[in-house]
Amino acid sequence: MVSFQSDYIMGAHPRILERLAETNLTATAGYGSDEFCESAKKKIRTACECPEADVWFLVGGTQSNAVVISTVLQRFEGVIAAETGHIGFHEAGAVEYTGHKVFLLPQHEGKIDACELDAYIKGFYGDANNAHMVHPGMVYISHPTEYGTLYSKDELVRIGNVCRKYNIPLFLDGARLGYGLMSYSTDVTLPDIAKLCDVFYIGGTKVGALCGEAIVFTKNNTPSHFLTQIKQQGALIAKGRLLGVQFDTLFTDDLYFEISRHAIDMAEKLKKLLTDKGYTFYLDSPTNQQFVLISDEKLREIEKHVAVGFWEKPDSAHTVVRFATSWATTDEEIEELAKYL
Amino acid sequence: MVSFQSDYIMGAHPRILERLAETNLTATAGYGSDEFCESAKKKIRTACECPEADVWFLVGGTQSNAVVISTVLQRFEGVIAAETGHIGFHEAGAVEYTGHKVFLLPQHEGKIDACELDAYIKGFYGDANNAHMVHPGMVYISHPTEYGTLYSKDELVRIGNVCRKYNIPLFLDGARLGYGLMSYSTDVTLPDIAKLCDVFYIGGTKVGALCGEAIVFTKNNTPSHFLTQIKQQGALIAKGRLLGVQFDTLFTDDLYFEISRHAIDMAEKLKKLLTDKGYTFYLDSPTNQQFVLISDEKLREIEKHVAVGFWEKPDSAHTVVRFATSWATTDEEIEELAKYL
Amino acid sequence: MVSFQSDYIMGAHPRILERLAETNLTATAGYGSDEFCESAKKKIRTACECPEADVWFLVGGTQSNAVVISTVLQRFEGVIAAETGHIGFHEAGAVEYTGHKVFLLPQHEGKIDACELDAYIKGFYGDANNAHMVHPGMVYISHPTEYGTLYSKDELVRIGNVCRKYNIPLFLDGARLGYGLMSYSTDVTLPDIAKLCDVFYIGGTKVGALCGEAIVFTKNNTPSHFLTQIKQQGALIAKGRLLGVQFDTLFTDDLYFEISRHAIDMAEKLKKLLTDKGYTFYLDSPTNQQFVLISDEKLREIEKHVAVGFWEKPDSAHTVVRFATSWATTDEEIEELAKYL
Amino acid sequence: MVSFQSDYIMGAHPRILERLAETNLTATAGYGSDEFCESAKKKIRTACECPEADVWFLVGGTQSNAVVISTVLQRFEGVIAAETGHIGFHEAGAVEYTGHKVFLLPQHEGKIDACELDAYIKGFYGDANNAHMVHPGMVYISHPTEYGTLYSKDELVRIGNVCRKYNIPLFLDGARLGYGLMSYSTDVTLPDIAKLCDVFYIGGTKVGALCGEAIVFTKNNTPSHFLTQIKQQGALIAKGRLLGVQFDTLFTDDLYFEISRHAIDMAEKLKKLLTDKGYTFYLDSPTNQQFVLISDEKLREIEKHVAVGFWEKPDSAHTVVRFATSWATTDEEIEELAKYL
Repeated sequence: MVSFQSDYIMGAHPRILERLAETNLTATAGYGSDEFCESAKKKIRTACECPEADVWFLVGGTQSNAVVISTVLQRFEGVIAAETGHIGFHEAGAVEYTGHKVFLLPQHEGKIDACELDAYIKGFYGDANNAHMVHPGMVYISHPTEYGTLYSKDELVRIGNVCRKYNIPLFLDGARLGYGLMSYSTDVTLPDIAKLCDVFYIGGTKVGALCGEAIVFTKNNTPSHFLTQIKQQGALIAKGRLLGVQFDTLFTDDLYFEISRHAIDMAEKLKKLLTDKGYTFYLDSPTNQQFVLISDEKLREIEKHVAVGFWEKPDSAHTVVRFATSWATTDEEIEELAKYL
Repeated sequence: MVSFQSDYIMGAHPRILERLAETNLTATAGYGSDEFCESAKKKIRTACECPEADVWFLVGGTQSNAVVISTVLQRFEGVIAAETGHIGFHEAGAVEYTGHKVFLLPQHEGKIDACELDAYIKGFYGDANNAHMVHPGMVYISHPTEYGTLYSKDELVRIGNVCRKYNIPLFLDGARLGYGLMSYSTDVTLPDIAKLCDVFYIGGTKVGALCGEAIVFTKNNTPSHFLTQIKQQGALIAKGRLLGVQFDTLFTDDLYFEISRHAIDMAEKLKKLLTDKGYTFYLDSPTNQQFVLISDEKLREIEKHVAVGFWEKPDSAHTVVRFATSWATTDEEIEELAKYL
Repeated sequence: MVSFQSDYIMGAHPRILERLAETNLTATAGYGSDEFCESAKKKIRTACECPEADVWFLVGGTQSNAVVISTVLQRFEGVIAAETGHIGFHEAGAVEYTGHKVFLLPQHEGKIDACELDAYIKGFYGDANNAHMVHPGMVYISHPTEYGTLYSKDELVRIGNVCRKYNIPLFLDGARLGYGLMSYSTDVTLPDIAKLCDVFYIGGTKVGALCGEAIVFTKNNTPSHFLTQIKQQGALIAKGRLLGVQFDTLFTDDLYFEISRHAIDMAEKLKKLLTDKGYTFYLDSPTNQQFVLISDEKLREIEKHVAVGFWEKPDSAHTVVRFATSWATTDEEIEELAKYL
Repeated sequence: MVSFQSDYIMGAHPRILERLAETNLTATAGYGSDEFCESAKKKIRTACECPEADVWFLVGGTQSNAVVISTVLQRFEGVIAAETGHIGFHEAGAVEYTGHKVFLLPQHEGKIDACELDAYIKGFYGDANNAHMVHPGMVYISHPTEYGTLYSKDELVRIGNVCRKYNIPLFLDGARLGYGLMSYSTDVTLPDIAKLCDVFYIGGTKVGALCGEAIVFTKNNTPSHFLTQIKQQGALIAKGRLLGVQFDTLFTDDLYFEISRHAIDMAEKLKKLLTDKGYTFYLDSPTNQQFVLISDEKLREIEKHVAVGFWEKPDSAHTVVRFATSWATTDEEIEELAKYL
């Protein structure tokens, strides 16, 4: 049995485990004020080419979204997202739990469009009754999106311009950011993201860590008493070193980028394999998640040997499934998969 | 420099790191539905002698308190705690953030008294205006308490009886539970706790794990759709295996109890040392945290060589400090400390 | 200047003011436990032909929506509404403020469709990942809708059947219920609504009262400790008599129905007038709100003499405006309006 | 039967009802943007001698407390109150429902002490772990207090000084403010309150209105988009005129002060009567609420003819009851009461 079910099916990159073991008996202060967190933050600031970046480590993606959105927004504000945005439907209402509305814009292969965004916010400001409405207070995008697609640099610039026009921060969910940055077809770099976004996070959980997301505030815009607010949401861990050591390792010798690139290489092999076998792609994804339309009959065959992710059922005879590669995917697994397609 | 600052200054027990490495490349499903979580849950049910126990793994203590309290309470209910209870002042209002009030009872060396508890709840039910008041909906105790003290079995029985009298669940915060169970002077066992409490948690973060608390619902009383509610609070991690492997290791071959006992042995040595040197204890703690009154002059001396935890300043010339031992404390560290006392 | 701006531009029906004066010096208990509330509840139960109905009085519509939705839903549940539903965009996020998501379904002249509703909920239950999603926990409809349209009895029956199929309560926002019940073209009665809905409210603010909405739970399904929860949301008023006297008056001698019918008579005159003058209706409304497309040039003329409600701007040269009649509209006002159309 | 049960047992001062009737058919805009609200605000600014005061009208006291506290506080802040403060126990957790903690200070006949307040806040800022704690963000006092007592001007000045020292706003709950201002023994005026407090409210519900509290922000410190936030809490009423007309009437020709003085005159007669009859006062109240210790036997006698408010049972043979006068209390009622004491 070989698994392409998700990019979080295995533990951590071995170098992370080694480093956890090496540093295990170093006594440190708690709650993120340790030397490993400091070192990791410094390396991330450098990688972002953003010396003023303020970096914080949280445990997971939904948690990061809930903490960032609820601390950046004023209480009468909501967040705008694509209708396929992870915060819209797949986080159990974590944003609403903090009291905030998620506005949903049309999605285009998982992305929002700058013009539609502009029109939406303009509509709010043009509405005579908007004092009775939630104010748009943030734009949320994911990159790669939930469909594995990527914004071009130009698209990000245009979305960023809309945000600045209305003085609304742009927040980028980078749960799979590494896989986006190392895509063969992207023109977006980490410094670009740091420059264009007001806050974003660099995903660890799905890119080689046991857990952890590095939140980066890029414009001297960290919410006041942010540590207290993290604690208030139950998201502050006592042994902050667990996150510090992991990110310090990921940002040493470009490990984060190297393992992300490996996952992309594997995804491209997978794409070629699927194309050669005549499969229909649900959409064209340049990252580590590939969505493929398969007849249910064929799927039953494949699933005897391969674990894949269920996505949706477009009709009664077909299924869209997701094949995900990761830092841990091997050539052998791709070859094994080839046997059953 | 030697540190007795807290019980979370180091990484994890080495056996945990080994086991994380051994299992690292085993593919598993996400969100806690993996084989390691299953195995750990089974072992915890056995250790609790409570076959019907429903076990869940969360990342940290404040998170566990917030999730348990907010999911067990109805929205018009509050939780009763000692005025020194961790949820009362040291969790940044995480309980209130979920909309619930914390009622504070007098503390007696960190503990609440069953008679005072009874009188308090009776007072509520006797108040003609109680429809205008938050209803008492849960009793929260910590064991060991924030002062390292322990409830006797009799005290727990009596508190449990009050809870049952008013049909209110009893919730025990066991962030340091191992150190309580292995105290030389306790008569309370893990099965006792499973029997007497409606829900409790077995702390991992402060007892040998990198992170993690095992929440145990003992009376077929898990809140409905609990996984969804955990996710809603941003507390569900994708690689649930990180918690499963740790607790599976801690509950294999009694490791949890063995390392807790070691911390207690070290604490008893520390106590003897401090007693022999003529120090004044702030109170008599039978667990791994020792609170000592020290003159500020002496403290400045000690702190050149030893990290301790600041507790409070009873007057302008003295300080109460905390010495904490843990699974990781060594005889050498105690001996080193002896030089400076 | 004559005003058709809204149905809340004037005070209360004179009989209400008289009754407030008559009862002014009768001493009563507070918080809704007075004789006037009791009498009003009894009359409403009779009018609903629902002896088991549990009636509560709140001050306003947004408040009623927020209180009902947040007390009926479990915390991991959301409410389904039409994309034009008042709770979706025009209540400043009052539902989200209580922690709940509003799911938006397509609207058809302000109404949701039973088949689309069924498909939506079915989709949720068929989604393998729905443990990570907010659960649909209530269906919200407004009757009349925000566009003045009405559900037929058959439409309500079919929506109710979907709700029962999935065991989800149906909540009807009746802020303008009187105007719906007295429409010339409805086949829905108040007893029908009490039978088909799990909870609904009878609007007072827009139908002759100074303030007040009567919430009716029809199925022995009042949330537990409802008074406490009302208080918790700041919605319990000390002088409950203010609401009791008003609803007691409205439900004496069919006043509520009589004044609603008057508003409908006035609306029909208005419709005829607008039709005769060749105006284009935005949609066909059988109630007291009429939406008309007017050229901006003409609108500027009209607004010199007539106050109307702005609705939306479909293009740069036209505006949709609302003409609303109420219990207070007079023939003279219609005649005055005729001069300027 | 004569009633001294509370100060909200009757309707409104007749002049208010008259004015509601007179203005009933004047068409106005909704949501508080009407001429009556404007006029009332102007008169209140004048009465406060505070031209920059920003005045808003809400319906009730708990609502006003919840709206003011939750909009003024940052989300990681809590509010400090006396342990007898209304927000602490008698508002069903309305403050906690908005996510904020209520810190309780010792009460002295219902009042907090400036020195204890200073020490408390100082303790917070001196605590090395205060990043893990809710921050004190507001001081709440009630005047008169829940026991009918009053702060002297000097006490208010000293509390205000502590607030300014720590840059924390002072909020005064004036649900019964009129009765405080008209007390025979106060040296505090309405302009004093406007000067010393950052925000306060002038109670209408208990001082002659059907409902309504006038919130006054005195330092150009209204929370941003306050109307939207009021709506978000379900506290914005469509017919704002209901509140505007009432407060406009109360602040015309000093009606508010005149009727408050009447209630005080009645309370002083009541006090003299009780004193002459040898009753024991629970404490010395200079306002319209009088708390008296009565044997249960005597109380049973009295209650056959007189409705009083239950306060507490200090022992098994006695009860503390409240006698409340109001704008509506008559000499005849006092005389009637005299017969049964």
